[in-house]
Amino acid sequence: MSKENTQILFSKRPIGIFDPKETFTIVKTPIPTLGDLKDGQILVKIYYLSLDPAMRGWMNTTRSYIKPVEINEVMRGQAVGEIVLSKNPKLKVGDKVQGLLGWQEYAIIDGQDVRKITPLPGASIRDYVGIFGGTGMTAYFGLLDGKPKPGDTVVVSGAAGATGSIVGQIAKIKGARVIGIAGSEDKCKWLLNLGFDVALNYRDPKFAEKLAKATPNYIDIYFDNVGGDILDHCLKRIAKNGRIVLCGAISQYNEKQPKGPAFYTALITQRAKMEGFIIFDYAQKFPIAIKDMSKWLQEGKIKRREFIIDGLENAPNGLLKLFNGFNTGKMLVKVNDENVKSKL
Amino acid sequence: MSKENTQILFSKRPIGIFDPKETFTIVKTPIPTLGDLKDGQILVKIYYLSLDPAMRGWMNTTRSYIKPVEINEVMRGQAVGEIVLSKNPKLKVGDKVQGLLGWQEYAIIDGQDVRKITPLPGASIRDYVGIFGGTGMTAYFGLLDGKPKPGDTVVVSGAAGATGSIVGQIAKIKGARVIGIAGSEDKCKWLLNLGFDVALNYRDPKFAEKLAKATPNYIDIYFDNVGGDILDHCLKRIAKNGRIVLCGAISQYNEKQPKGPAFYTALITQRAKMEGFIIFDYAQKFPIAIKDMSKWLQEGKIKRREFIIDGLENAPNGLLKLFNGFNTGKMLVKVNDENVKSKL
Repeated sequence: MSKENTQILFSKRPIGIFDPKETFTIVKTPIPTLGDLKDGQILVKIYYLSLDPAMRGWMNTTRSYIKPVEINEVMRGQAVGEIVLSKNPKLKVGDKVQGLLGWQEYAIIDGQDVRKITPLPGASIRDYVGIFGGTGMTAYFGLLDGKPKPGDTVVVSGAAGATGSIVGQIAKIKGARVIGIAGSEDKCKWLLNLGFDVALNYRDPKFAEKLAKATPNYIDIYFDNVGGDILDHCLKRIAKNGRIVLCGAISQYNEKQPKGPAFYTALITQRAKMEGFIIFDYAQKFPIAIKDMSKWLQEGKIKRREFIIDGLENAPNGLLKLFNGFNTGKMLVKVNDENVKSKL
Repeated sequence: MSKENTQILFSKRPIGIFDPKETFTIVKTPIPTLGDLKDGQILVKIYYLSLDPAMRGWMNTTRSYIKPVEINEVMRGQAVGEIVLSKNPKLKVGDKVQGLLGWQEYAIIDGQDVRKITPLPGASIRDYVGIFGGTGMTAYFGLLDGKPKPGDTVVVSGAAGATGSIVGQIAKIKGARVIGIAGSEDKCKWLLNLGFDVALNYRDPKFAEKLAKATPNYIDIYFDNVGGDILDHCLKRIAKNGRIVLCGAISQYNEKQPKGPAFYTALITQRAKMEGFIIFDYAQKFPIAIKDMSKWLQEGKIKRREFIIDGLENAPNGLLKLFNGFNTGKMLVKVNDENVKSKL
């Protein structure tokens, strides 16, 4: 077995679109040993790393909800893996854990900074960076804070992504009429298979017209993952007292001059609101969400799709693909094979 | 006494900045007589007409909270006056009333569409289109819906305007630290006289820097009357869980291509919200507000300033001045002299 730990360092702060080669540097370091751990720490062998649009924001020094990644630091990322060394009395070798383990094969981390996971029937370890991880929790709390009622019109953008696809399915469970916005005909077909009432391709020249036609009673909740022109189109269709759940703005993260929603004054004329949230704030409530989500998963009411990239060294290009609309469902990087005996 | 009724018609829908001469047409018509009134209607001799930024929005056909003014219709506007003819059993000649009486000297209107006013001690009839009218009610409900707490940092733009100046004073009454943003040194001096803690001139090249310095604990509530760059500067300083009360966007109403707030993603990182409101929705609660406001007025805790334009024919140019930062306080048009015997 390799004695090397592949790590991906954040090496240059990008302006605008990031160049995977310039932004990241792949290094090989020795795999830490027990002597490298302080009391309370564990060494985790990472199986899957989550790739998320929010990672682009973590590269910026703008005031945010989390400090920026520092130059030459291991790139930040949610991941799942297995404990291979432990100096934490509450966690033992073989335990599966999830946390901000970073873009690396092996991570030293404080035991209190990980969440121990016990995959439920029908779930995989990967689900703990998917529907039971950041994207699933984001979908659950973001949508439910918008208070969807039966019969409401719910629109979600980035609908074929990890978060959007779950948002739409939960909205259906709550009795809403659901319109998904995605960037290809294939993605739209998948959304209809998931039970979305309408799926619209924003690359269609008649998109705005079709959105208007699909929302005769206007939009009660718009769950925004993308920002840009689509946000403006949805503002034009917002219902009186409508709610815009601001989750992300993937269309703007790589822009040097981000574009604001010119039609935001519809919030005034329609007495509507636009509110942001950060999933970290809900950590105490995750167990409630995981209980609901696993029930829905077992009942077949929620389906998920994964887009798995093989090998940590492909993570930088994978992240770029996320911004190019390449993936459907949850994008993950397979870092180590979970079936191989993981004891060092 | 003149037998003519001067009326100002909306004659051409402007795109971008409006030209007072092209947009409006002044006509002279006979003053209506009792025979012109239907049952339930009254004839009101108008004393004061309110000029408000919202009037620019009423000229557009964009979906809004109120239907657009039609071409060749008398321009819409809040006004106060006295009943000179009545076919409404609940209202008699001599009663003072307030309502959407329009840009004209005499208005026929349904009795149920006006509010009878009885000026309180220390108040004038003009206050019923000012602090007890649209602008005062807007300040009161808009700010209090934002739930200011003692010690909060409240920022208000258009602070020397009719609404902004009242917002800041109510925020002080509620124990907040108040920063006003206005467009001249004179306006800023007046704000400090009103008790604002800080007054900033947005034309100052160091405005952004000064705003940052004035908000070391960031902004809990931003009451936005202006939109544009100032909204972006305040978004950059919004506090965690901050609230942006969207009242208006005077900087954008005359723009052909309105500018959205590019920094709106701060709503995500700071879990903040931006919410619009329309004062008409609060009509049932106006008496509560008027009671509070008149108490504060009598206690000297609220002061107001008026900017009175003489003569209805000057209303079109007056409205344009409102957008050029010309006025301090409430802009009104004196339409008829209230001291002249008003019986026809």
